[in-house]
Amino acid sequence: MPDQQARRRPIISLLTDFGLAGGYVGSMKAVILSRVEADIVDITHSVPPQAVSAGALILRSVAGYFPAGTVHVGVVDPGVGSSRKPIAVKSGGHFFVGPDNGLLIPAARSVGRPEVREIDVEKIGLGKVSRTFHGRDIFSPAAAYIASGGDFEKIGRKLRSWEEIELFSSRRLSNGITGSYICADSFGNMITSIAADEFLKVFSMDEKVSVDVGDSRHVLEFRSTYSEVAEGKPLILIGSHGNVEIAIRNGNAESYFKAKPGSEITFRKISF
Amino acid sequence: MPDQQARRRPIISLLTDFGLAGGYVGSMKAVILSRVEADIVDITHSVPPQAVSAGALILRSVAGYFPAGTVHVGVVDPGVGSSRKPIAVKSGGHFFVGPDNGLLIPAARSVGRPEVREIDVEKIGLGKVSRTFHGRDIFSPAAAYIASGGDFEKIGRKLRSWEEIELFSSRRLSNGITGSYICADSFGNMITSIAADEFLKVFSMDEKVSVDVGDSRHVLEFRSTYSEVAEGKPLILIGSHGNVEIAIRNGNAESYFKAKPGSEITFRKISF
Amino acid sequence: MPDQQARRRPIISLLTDFGLAGGYVGSMKAVILSRVEADIVDITHSVPPQAVSAGALILRSVAGYFPAGTVHVGVVDPGVGSSRKPIAVKSGGHFFVGPDNGLLIPAARSVGRPEVREIDVEKIGLGKVSRTFHGRDIFSPAAAYIASGGDFEKIGRKLRSWEEIELFSSRRLSNGITGSYICADSFGNMITSIAADEFLKVFSMDEKVSVDVGDSRHVLEFRSTYSEVAEGKPLILIGSHGNVEIAIRNGNAESYFKAKPGSEITFRKISF
Repeated sequence: MPDQQARRRPIISLLTDFGLAGGYVGSMKAVILSRVEADIVDITHSVPPQAVSAGALILRSVAGYFPAGTVHVGVVDPGVGSSRKPIAVKSGGHFFVGPDNGLLIPAARSVGRPEVREIDVEKIGLGKVSRTFHGRDIFSPAAAYIASGGDFEKIGRKLRSWEEIELFSSRRLSNGITGSYICADSFGNMITSIAADEFLKVFSMDEKVSVDVGDSRHVLEFRSTYSEVAEGKPLILIGSHGNVEIAIRNGNAESYFKAKPGSEITFRKISF
Repeated sequence: MPDQQARRRPIISLLTDFGLAGGYVGSMKAVILSRVEADIVDITHSVPPQAVSAGALILRSVAGYFPAGTVHVGVVDPGVGSSRKPIAVKSGGHFFVGPDNGLLIPAARSVGRPEVREIDVEKIGLGKVSRTFHGRDIFSPAAAYIASGGDFEKIGRKLRSWEEIELFSSRRLSNGITGSYICADSFGNMITSIAADEFLKVFSMDEKVSVDVGDSRHVLEFRSTYSEVAEGKPLILIGSHGNVEIAIRNGNAESYFKAKPGSEITFRKISF
Repeated sequence: MPDQQARRRPIISLLTDFGLAGGYVGSMKAVILSRVEADIVDITHSVPPQAVSAGALILRSVAGYFPAGTVHVGVVDPGVGSSRKPIAVKSGGHFFVGPDNGLLIPAARSVGRPEVREIDVEKIGLGKVSRTFHGRDIFSPAAAYIASGGDFEKIGRKLRSWEEIELFSSRRLSNGITGSYICADSFGNMITSIAADEFLKVFSMDEKVSVDVGDSRHVLEFRSTYSEVAEGKPLILIGSHGNVEIAIRNGNAESYFKAKPGSEITFRKISF
């Protein structure tokens, strides 16, 4: 498996909540390609608007599959135009560029030990920086700077503290575990904040589990794969993100359970 | 026109029902680019969930436009985690990788004579193969293996039979032709299973045709192009997929006719 | 910043209203990559169907960020199959390819002085040109021809007149300014036809403004950035497109104000 050094062209990944209308993503790519010949890979641009936790979860689940040397640009940025800092992070040979709001940190921690710097906008940004579109005006030029071999230490001063967010949060109950519903994937599978290993301390594969989700209580089976339940039946499984998920085989759990991202979700043992 | 051999970088195309949320497609690309410097082209990731026929139709309509040597990865895979085989297909100089459920075969037949092999997961897959995400863990590494010049015969044992699906199915009636509605494209144009040449045995260009679609009957004109009917008017035409389509000029036929994918659609002569 | 001449591979950008279902965009890329090794960049494929003005606005806002030498393919083409001409435009070192309906011209004018030619379909197009899919059959081959260094003057005869469309249109009132609502971006921010500099002749930053939009009247603040108003509050601001926009901080203005693209929008001074 070649690492970035052996590649002829660097890789830059993009993750935003910009959607694919409006040309925002296109102008980020234009700025990058004006400065460096890179392979640009869209992780996703469909992060729910302003949902920093959902974006952080996706970035963490994907970043480690890229080769070392990849520059990951993440922009889910409710604070654009405020005083939040633009940062660049180096970790385990990967680089991350985006706002200082916690978005980048779980991914950076998943591949190594983060070194965080504040991007020097005067030096790195486009000549004229807009107040509403730092993805194009600061983060894209910063990514191109790193991808074209620019000295990471010269990107700006080193920070000693930065924003963190907690993913994979859950709490043990006497007879179960509780966490939150983060977001659905594009199949409507509901991704929770509960990590597989925490869940497996309480429940065993193929166990029936009582679940409180939204305003209602359900009994679902914990299975290792969709095909073990009948068409249209809901189940609990460990998703490819490493999180506990609620899914419906060949159906849409998000529409069925009507839970809102951020709401509580509780799994309990069934006594008998 | 250069073929793949003259190119500096191989081409890998992707077609899935993963959507663009959730980072699934991004992690497939990460795995591919970790292993080979390729040009990755999205055919679509918006195949209706689990709709193998719709995916097969789109793949067949597009694959032949790529140069020989292209590796096409198709993942519409209701049976993931079951015993369905992962396969790699060589046909007419093109390669196809995906599940053994019929998805790849119409495209493979459209460019040549398929040689089908079962992918040796132990040898080709990621070290740890998940039960829910073979797109990332098996099909992406297999595509990278082929694109980087790996020996096709060593990808796994040759199969003598595999799953097939029938596209372009229709049945002649005494006064017409009947088929099924496969899916709508992104304009809401309704693509049917009826092939242009079968339809042209019954109807002539500019003929008025009686159409049973959903629960209702309509009289539509068969035209060679949208601009031959008035704004907002429905028509029958031969789409760029080579299938008979029902469309509305500058409108959305799918919303108008309210038919469900898979339902019957019948075209009859108008006697006078 | 390297220009296209210094790059190893040319850049081709794509802007269409094809959406990402149906494989249309994939087959355009297949045709291009069969003919030239290029970096293909999606600007967007989510232009509202047939909305030439919206497409022209997005293309103009993005094209100039690409390096000189880029070939921009724009296909929003209600007249496909009619007698409208296929054109190629050279302007300020950039190239544009698409239908002669005004789509390409504002972008071309934003980077230089357009030279417009009618594409010689016999010479440049695919052997067999369909009547419904010129994006694949004419515009993609034409873009590949230019990107691979083909002589621009041989692409077809020079035109002395072509279709134009007016973006950035507004009209001064005694106590305000009126224009139209073009389209929403993917956040639901409503982009108007009023240019920032025209608006700033009438209103000052931080002024309260009376706005007639849809069927109702509102008083909104004119601010330089989202973060200056409370969560969920609407505001007027200058978007990154250079147009006056109506937005809601962390909300969706399009759903809130229920205006239709193309409708009138009027801003008036509040007297006191």
